[in-house]
Amino acid sequence: MKQANYQWLLDYSKTTAYYESMLGLLHWDQRTYLPEGGRAHRSEQIGEMASLLHRRATDPQLAEILAEAHTRKTRGEDITDEAVNLREWKRIHDRATKISERLAVALARAASQGELAWGKTKEENDWKGFLPHLEEIVALKQEEAQALSAGGKELYDALIDDFEQGETAGKIEPLFTKLEGALFTLLEKIEASPRKPDPAALRGACPPAAQEAFIREVIGGLGYDFQAGRMDFSAHPFTSAIGPGDVRITTRFSHDSFVMGLFSSIHEAGHALYARGLPVEHWGTPRGSSVSMAIHESQSRLWENMVGKSVGFWRRFYPAACRHFPWLGKTGQDQFLLAVNEVCPSPIRTEADEVTYNLHIIMRFKLERMLIGGELRARELPEAWDSEMDRYFHLRPKNYSEGVMQDIHWSSGAFGYFPSYGLGNMYAAQFFAKAQKELGDLQKMFAAGDFWPLLGWLRKNIHSQGSRLLPRDLVRTATGEQLQADYLIGYLEGKYGKAYGLR
Amino acid sequence: MKQANYQWLLDYSKTTAYYESMLGLLHWDQRTYLPEGGRAHRSEQIGEMASLLHRRATDPQLAEILAEAHTRKTRGEDITDEAVNLREWKRIHDRATKISERLAVALARAASQGELAWGKTKEENDWKGFLPHLEEIVALKQEEAQALSAGGKELYDALIDDFEQGETAGKIEPLFTKLEGALFTLLEKIEASPRKPDPAALRGACPPAAQEAFIREVIGGLGYDFQAGRMDFSAHPFTSAIGPGDVRITTRFSHDSFVMGLFSSIHEAGHALYARGLPVEHWGTPRGSSVSMAIHESQSRLWENMVGKSVGFWRRFYPAACRHFPWLGKTGQDQFLLAVNEVCPSPIRTEADEVTYNLHIIMRFKLERMLIGGELRARELPEAWDSEMDRYFHLRPKNYSEGVMQDIHWSSGAFGYFPSYGLGNMYAAQFFAKAQKELGDLQKMFAAGDFWPLLGWLRKNIHSQGSRLLPRDLVRTATGEQLQADYLIGYLEGKYGKAYGLR
Repeated sequence: MKQANYQWLLDYSKTTAYYESMLGLLHWDQRTYLPEGGRAHRSEQIGEMASLLHRRATDPQLAEILAEAHTRKTRGEDITDEAVNLREWKRIHDRATKISERLAVALARAASQGELAWGKTKEENDWKGFLPHLEEIVALKQEEAQALSAGGKELYDALIDDFEQGETAGKIEPLFTKLEGALFTLLEKIEASPRKPDPAALRGACPPAAQEAFIREVIGGLGYDFQAGRMDFSAHPFTSAIGPGDVRITTRFSHDSFVMGLFSSIHEAGHALYARGLPVEHWGTPRGSSVSMAIHESQSRLWENMVGKSVGFWRRFYPAACRHFPWLGKTGQDQFLLAVNEVCPSPIRTEADEVTYNLHIIMRFKLERMLIGGELRARELPEAWDSEMDRYFHLRPKNYSEGVMQDIHWSSGAFGYFPSYGLGNMYAAQFFAKAQKELGDLQKMFAAGDFWPLLGWLRKNIHSQGSRLLPRDLVRTATGEQLQADYLIGYLEGKYGKAYGLR
Repeated sequence: MKQANYQWLLDYSKTTAYYESMLGLLHWDQRTYLPEGGRAHRSEQIGEMASLLHRRATDPQLAEILAEAHTRKTRGEDITDEAVNLREWKRIHDRATKISERLAVALARAASQGELAWGKTKEENDWKGFLPHLEEIVALKQEEAQALSAGGKELYDALIDDFEQGETAGKIEPLFTKLEGALFTLLEKIEASPRKPDPAALRGACPPAAQEAFIREVIGGLGYDFQAGRMDFSAHPFTSAIGPGDVRITTRFSHDSFVMGLFSSIHEAGHALYARGLPVEHWGTPRGSSVSMAIHESQSRLWENMVGKSVGFWRRFYPAACRHFPWLGKTGQDQFLLAVNEVCPSPIRTEADEVTYNLHIIMRFKLERMLIGGELRARELPEAWDSEMDRYFHLRPKNYSEGVMQDIHWSSGAFGYFPSYGLGNMYAAQFFAKAQKELGDLQKMFAAGDFWPLLGWLRKNIHSQGSRLLPRDLVRTATGEQLQADYLIGYLEGKYGKAYGLR
C-alpha cells in the first residue's frame, strides 16, 4: 500500500493507543484509589472513552484506507510488520463495525458499574444485590456475541475470540477434556498418598510491611523494574500497562500467610515482564502489542508456578523469607517447599494449587459457555456452581463470596476469558520445557539467583514477537510443536509425582 | 435559541467535561504515583488529550450553533443559566480558535515536561537543567498571549484573563500598590514590636502517622468529605476535582513541625469545599463550574488563614493537637497561637505568614509581567529574583530551590496565576467580613466546632453560584461592595495589631 496511507494508519493507531492508555489509567484508579463518591462519575468517564474509541475504530476514513490495503500474506513466520499491523487493524475494525456505538458504550458502562457493584456485594455476600448487574452484563454480552458472530457458530466463540484470536470452544474442548482426565487421575493418586504436607508450615505472623519488603525483593530479583512500574493494593490483583515505561501491578495480603500475596505478586509481575518485553519501537501498533490473553497468562502462570514454586527458586529466596518471617526457619526448606506445593481442593480459584487450578478453569469454561449460550440463566448460577464444585472437588462453598461471586471476571463482562488461563498453563508448560532444553539446568540458575537466561529466552521468543504470530503459530515457532496438553500434564505428573512420592 | 440547539450544546459541554476530567486524572497521577519511567508517555498522553480538547473547542458545528445564539444579557444578577453558559461557551470557543492546534498541544506537552523537569531539577538545585524548559515555556506562553490578545494591550493580560476573566495587570496594579504600602507599614511596626513569638513552640517530634491523623480530624471537622475524596502526598500540594463526588487533595509533611502540612491541607480542603459546593445539577457546564482562580484561592486562603489561624479554631483543635503531639501541651494555647501567627519574612512563599505572603505575590506579579512582556529574560530571572527578595524582605535565598525555583507555577506554564492569590486574599477578607456581619460571632462558633454556618454562607453566596457572575460582580452581589484592598488591610492590621500589641 501507499507509504503515506500506511503512515496515516500508524499515526492513527498510536493516537488510539494513547486514548486506550488513558482508559487504562481510569481502570487502574477505579481499582486502587477511587473514592466511593466518584464511582458513578467513573463509569460515565469510561463510557465516554469507550464511545470515543468506538467512533475511532469505525471511522469512515479508516475504513476507506483499510479497504485499499491488500495484504496477500497475513500469517507465517516471514510476515512483515506492515502485514501484521494491517491484519490486526482490519480485525479490530471489522469487529467494531459490527457493534453499535450504543452497545459499545452500554457494555463499557455496565462493566464498570458491574465491577464496582461486585466489589461491594461480594464483601457483603449479597448475591441478590449483584444479580441485576450480572443479568444486565450477560444480556449485553449475548447481544455483542450475536452482533459479532457470523451465525451458525456458538455465540460464546465470538467472546473467546476477543481474547484468543482464532480459538473456539470446540477447539478448546478436546484439550480441556484430555487435561481434565489426566488431572482427575493425578489428583486421586495424590489424595491417596500417605505423604501429607503440613499447611501449618506456612502460617505465622506476616506483618504487611514484611510482606511488601519480601515481595519487592523477589519480583525485583525476577526482573520487575520499579522505576518503570509500581505496586499498589486492590481487592483483585491486576496488571495495568499504562505506557511502555509504566507497567503497574497490584497485590493483596493475607494476615496469617505471606504466600498468597507473594504468588499473586509474582503472577502479576509475570504479566508485567511480558508487557515490558514488548518491542517499544512498535508501541501503539499491533506489532508491539500482546497477542492474546492466553499468552499473557502463560507468562504470569509460568513465573508464578514453574519458577515461583520450584526448588531452585526457594534455594535462592528461602533465606530471604526467613529474614522477613523469622518463624519460618523452624520448618526447614524441604517441608516448606512441600507445603507451598500442597495439592488440596479449595473453593477459591486464585488460591488453588497447580493441579486443581485447571479444574477450576474447566468448570468456569463450561458454566460461562452455557450462560452465554442461554442454557443457563444468571439466577440459576449459584446452584449450578455448587453442583460443579461438588462434582469436581466434593466441596461446598460456605457462602456466595467464596463461591459463585469469587471472581471479578463476569462482573466486568469478561466472558470468554477463563479458557485463557487453561490455555495459558499449557503454553507455559510447553515454553518452559523448550527453554529448559535450550538453556540447560534452570533450577541451578534459579538457585544462583540467575533468572535472566529464562527472561531473555522469553523476551526473544515470546515478548518481542508482539502480535506478529497468532498464539498457536507462536508456540509452533518457539517450540517446534503444536499446542498440546501433554507438556502441562507431563510437568504436573513429574513434579507432583516426585513431591508426593507417587509411582 | 432553539431548545434542540441548546440541548446539543449542553451535551457537547458535558462530554468535553468528561474528557477534561480524564485530563485531571492524568495530572493527578503525574503528581502522585507516576513512576519515573512513565513520564515521557504521560506528557504524550496529555498532549493527545489537549489536542482532542482543542479540536472540540474549535469544532465547526459548535461554531455554527454558537454563532446563531444571540444573548442580549451576559451579566447582571438576573442572568439566566442559559445566558451564563452561552457567555462562557463563546468565550472558550473564541479563545480556542485564536490558538492553533499545534500550539495547544505544544503548550500541554511542554507544561507536563516542564513540571516533571522542575520536580527533578529543584531537588538537585539545578537551575541550568531547568532553564531550557523554562525558556521553552515562556516562548510558548508569549506566542499564546500574542495569539489571544487583540493587540495594543499588554501580552501578560491575555494570560491573566485565562484565570481571571476581565482582569488586567493595569486593573490589578492599583489594588496591589495600595496593599503593598499598607503591608510595608504594618511589617515595620511588627518588626519593631518587643513582643516576639517563640518559633520553638511549634517544633517537636511529628511522626507522619500522627500528622495524617490530625489533619484528617481537622479537615473532616471543617466539612471535607473523605467518601468523596482522598488525601495523598505530592511535592507541591494541589486539589484535583476529578468528578462531582471525587475531589482529591494532596499534602506534604515536614519532619519537625506539623503546621506546614496542616495549613497546606486546610488550604487544599478549602479548594475542595468550593469544588464540592458547585451545583452538581449543572456539572459539566459553565454554570456549574468555578468562576476564577481568585475566587478559588479566596476559598482556600480563607479556610487556611482566617479560619485555620484564628483563636476560635484553636480553641476547638488545640486539645486534639496535644493528643497527637504531646510535647505541644508544654507551651500553652496562647503562646502556640502567637507562634502560629508569627510574622517573619521567609524566602518561601508557601511558608509565609499572612502579612508577607501578599508581598511574595506582588513580587511574582511584577517579575512574570516583565518576563512575558519581554523586559526580562528567563536566564536573568535568578538575579532579578534575588534583587526583589532583598528589596521586599532583606533576604537572600541560599540556593535556587528555595529561591527562583521554589514554585511549580512557571514550570507548568501557569503565568498570570500568581495575581489570583493576591486577589483571592482580598476577596476572602471581604467575604469573611460580610459572613461575620450576617452570621454573628464566628470565633465562638469555631470554638464550638461549628464550621457549618460559615460553610453554608459560602455555599449559598459563592459556591452554588458557579460561573453565574464574574468575580467582581460576585463580590458586589455577595457583599454589597466593590472589590477593595481595604478589607484585607483592615483584617491584617486588626489581627496582627492585637497579636503584636501595636498601637
